[in-house]
Amino acid sequence: MKRLKTTPKQDGYRMPGEFEPQEGVYMLWPQRTDNWRNGAKPAQKVFVKVASTIAKYEKMTMLVNRDQYANARNMLPDNVRVIELSNNDSWARDTGATFVVNKKGEMRGIDWGFNAYGGFYDGIYFPWDFDECIGQKMSEIEEVDYYQIRDFVCEGGSFHVDGEGTCMVTEETLLSPGRNPDKSKKQIEKILKEYLNVEKVLWIPKGLYNDVDTNGHVDNICNFVKPGVVVLAWSDDKKDPQYKISREDYEYLSKVKDARGRKLEIHKLYCPSPQYITAEESGGIDYVEGTLPRNEGDRMAASYVNYLTGNGFVALPVFNDPMDEKAIETLQKLYPDRKIEPIYAREILLGGGNIHCITQQVPKHSNK
Amino acid sequence: MKRLKTTPKQDGYRMPGEFEPQEGVYMLWPQRTDNWRNGAKPAQKVFVKVASTIAKYEKMTMLVNRDQYANARNMLPDNVRVIELSNNDSWARDTGATFVVNKKGEMRGIDWGFNAYGGFYDGIYFPWDFDECIGQKMSEIEEVDYYQIRDFVCEGGSFHVDGEGTCMVTEETLLSPGRNPDKSKKQIEKILKEYLNVEKVLWIPKGLYNDVDTNGHVDNICNFVKPGVVVLAWSDDKKDPQYKISREDYEYLSKVKDARGRKLEIHKLYCPSPQYITAEESGGIDYVEGTLPRNEGDRMAASYVNYLTGNGFVALPVFNDPMDEKAIETLQKLYPDRKIEPIYAREILLGGGNIHCITQQVPKHSNK
Repeated sequence: MKRLKTTPKQDGYRMPGEFEPQEGVYMLWPQRTDNWRNGAKPAQKVFVKVASTIAKYEKMTMLVNRDQYANARNMLPDNVRVIELSNNDSWARDTGATFVVNKKGEMRGIDWGFNAYGGFYDGIYFPWDFDECIGQKMSEIEEVDYYQIRDFVCEGGSFHVDGEGTCMVTEETLLSPGRNPDKSKKQIEKILKEYLNVEKVLWIPKGLYNDVDTNGHVDNICNFVKPGVVVLAWSDDKKDPQYKISREDYEYLSKVKDARGRKLEIHKLYCPSPQYITAEESGGIDYVEGTLPRNEGDRMAASYVNYLTGNGFVALPVFNDPMDEKAIETLQKLYPDRKIEPIYAREILLGGGNIHCITQQVPKHSNK
Repeated sequence: MKRLKTTPKQDGYRMPGEFEPQEGVYMLWPQRTDNWRNGAKPAQKVFVKVASTIAKYEKMTMLVNRDQYANARNMLPDNVRVIELSNNDSWARDTGATFVVNKKGEMRGIDWGFNAYGGFYDGIYFPWDFDECIGQKMSEIEEVDYYQIRDFVCEGGSFHVDGEGTCMVTEETLLSPGRNPDKSKKQIEKILKEYLNVEKVLWIPKGLYNDVDTNGHVDNICNFVKPGVVVLAWSDDKKDPQYKISREDYEYLSKVKDARGRKLEIHKLYCPSPQYITAEESGGIDYVEGTLPRNEGDRMAASYVNYLTGNGFVALPVFNDPMDEKAIETLQKLYPDRKIEPIYAREILLGGGNIHCITQQVPKHSNK
C-alpha cells in the first residue's frame, strides 16, 4: 500500500468519533513478563474476555508475536481472527494505526511516531522497534494507504475526537519532554489539526492521578460520549489527589467551546476506590533494566473512563469495587442504545492501562 | 477462525482449477542466504518483478519475515500489500494454504503438514517450524475457517486439479519415504480425494529430471490448461535424461481418463536447454549444515510448465534461452484469452523452483 506524505486534512479525510459505526477492532496479545505478572497468563485470560465480548458485536482481530501465535489461537474463540504481528507490548490504542475516512467512506491509516511513552527521557520500556511499525502493518493488513509521520511522537490514547472538528488532549502528555521536545504547543496543535482533520484542539490540563505510564493520557480521564457531551473522571474525596485534578479539568472544560461553537455538557464519572498493587502482584513480575517497575503499594491509575465504545456496546473496565455499579448506571444513561459490558479488568490495570488502551477500532468504510 | 476437523468433501468444498477466476495471489519474500545467493538480493529483485506483474491483474499480497519487512515494503510497488509472517523459506505454493470453495462461493483453507520436502529423510532445510504454520496464518488473514491436517505431509506444488473432479500428482513425490511413509498409496489417494474433493487421482510416474528439491513435484512437469487439456514438459534430445521421463509420463497420460471420463488432450511444452549452476552463482551461497547445497555444475530443474495462471494472464518463467520463444508461442495458443507475461527467472530456478512454486492463488469467493 502507499505511504502518503500529504495530510488527511489536505486529502479530505477525518478521524470519526469512536461512537460512529465501526467495522471492527484490533488488539495486541500480552506476553512480556516484565510488565504482565506470572508469565502474562492472568492478563491473557482477561484479554480473551475483552476480545470475546467485542467479537459478539463486530469483527475482532488479535495481533500476536510469533512465539505466542499458537497459544493465542488456542485461547481465543473461533470468531476472533488471529494474525501474526511483532510487537513489544500490547497497547493497540497507542501503537496501532489511527484510521481516517473521507466523505465517500474510503479509509486510510495514520502511522504516528512511537517511543514507548517518552523514549530515553521517561519511556517505560526498551526497545520499541516493533511497536513503531504496528500502525504501518495494521494499515497494510486493512489494505489501505497510510500517512506516515514517524517524526511526530503521538499515541492513539493521547487524543479523542468528536468527529465534528474537535479533538481533546491533555497538556501533561502532549507537552511532556519525552514526546516532541523540539516542537512548540502551537506546532503540535497544527499537526493534530492536519492529521485528525479538526479545527479545534481542547487542551485539558491534567490526566488521571499517578498515570505515570502515559504521562496522563486523555483516554483515562475524559471521553466524548457524542459531539458536545463528555464524561470526566471524578472524585468527591478531598483527601484524594484526584479531587483537585478533576476540578481543574472541569473548570477548563466548562469554559471552552467545541469546534461547532457548543458549550460542553460534562458528566462526572466517579472513579473506583484507590487501587494499589499487592506484594503478590508485584512479585509476579520479572525485573528488566529499563522497564517501569510495578512496586507493591503503588497506586494504579484506575478509571472507568478507559472504556471502549463499539457497535451497540460499551466495554467497561470494572474492579469488584463498590463504585462499579454507579459507573454502569451513569454510562447506561449516557448510552441508552448500547449494552454496557462490564469486564473485571484489574489485570489490565496492573499492566498500566485498561480496555480503551488495549483496543483500536476500525471505522466503517467502503474500501473493500 | 475455526480449525475444522471435518473434510472439504464432507462439507461440499472443492479446490477450483487455477484457471478459474481468482481473488488474488500470495507470495513469500526470499531472504535465506543459504539458498538465495548474494544475500538474496538478486532473488528479491525477481520476486518484485513477479509480484509487480501479478499486481497488474489482481490483488497481490507479499508475506515477509519481520527483519525484512521494511526492505520488502521499500522494494515493492504500492499496489502490493505487505504483511508480516514468519517463514523459513519462500515457497508459497508449497507452504501456503490451499483454498477451497463451495457452491455458494464461500471459501475455506487447508493447512497441510509440511516438513521441508522430506523431513529428516531428505528434507532440504531445517528447521521448518514457521513454514508449518503458513497455511494456518494465511487462512486467518483471509478471514476463513480452515481444515487442519498436519499429520499428512503435502506441498501445494505436489498436486494440480482440474476443478471437475480430477487431481494429478507424481508417484515420485507422493510416495517418497520422506513424506508419509506410514501411509499406503491407497490411503494417500483417499486423503487427496477427501481434501481436494476429487473423484480421481492421476498418478503420473515421474517429475522433471533432477528435481531433487521436491522429489519431482507435478507442477514442474505437467499442468491443466483447462479440464481435459494438459501441458507436459518435453524434450526431443535422446541424450537428455528428460527424454525418457517425458515419454514415460506421456504414455501414462495418454492411457488414462479423467473423472468425467474424458481422454486427456496432451500438449508438449519443450524444456529450455539444460541449465547449470555456475561457479559464481554457487559461490554466493552460505554453507549451512542441513541445507541442500547448490554446487557448481549441478543441473537445475528448469521447466516452462512452472508458470502461474491468473486472471487474464500467464506468468511464465523464461531463461534467455532459444526455447523461450517456442514456449511463449505454445502457451499463447493454449491460452488465447490470457496475456503471456514472460519473466526472466533464473534467480528463482537457482533457489530450486520457479514462478508457480513461489505463488499461491486465492480463488474468487463471497466471504467478504
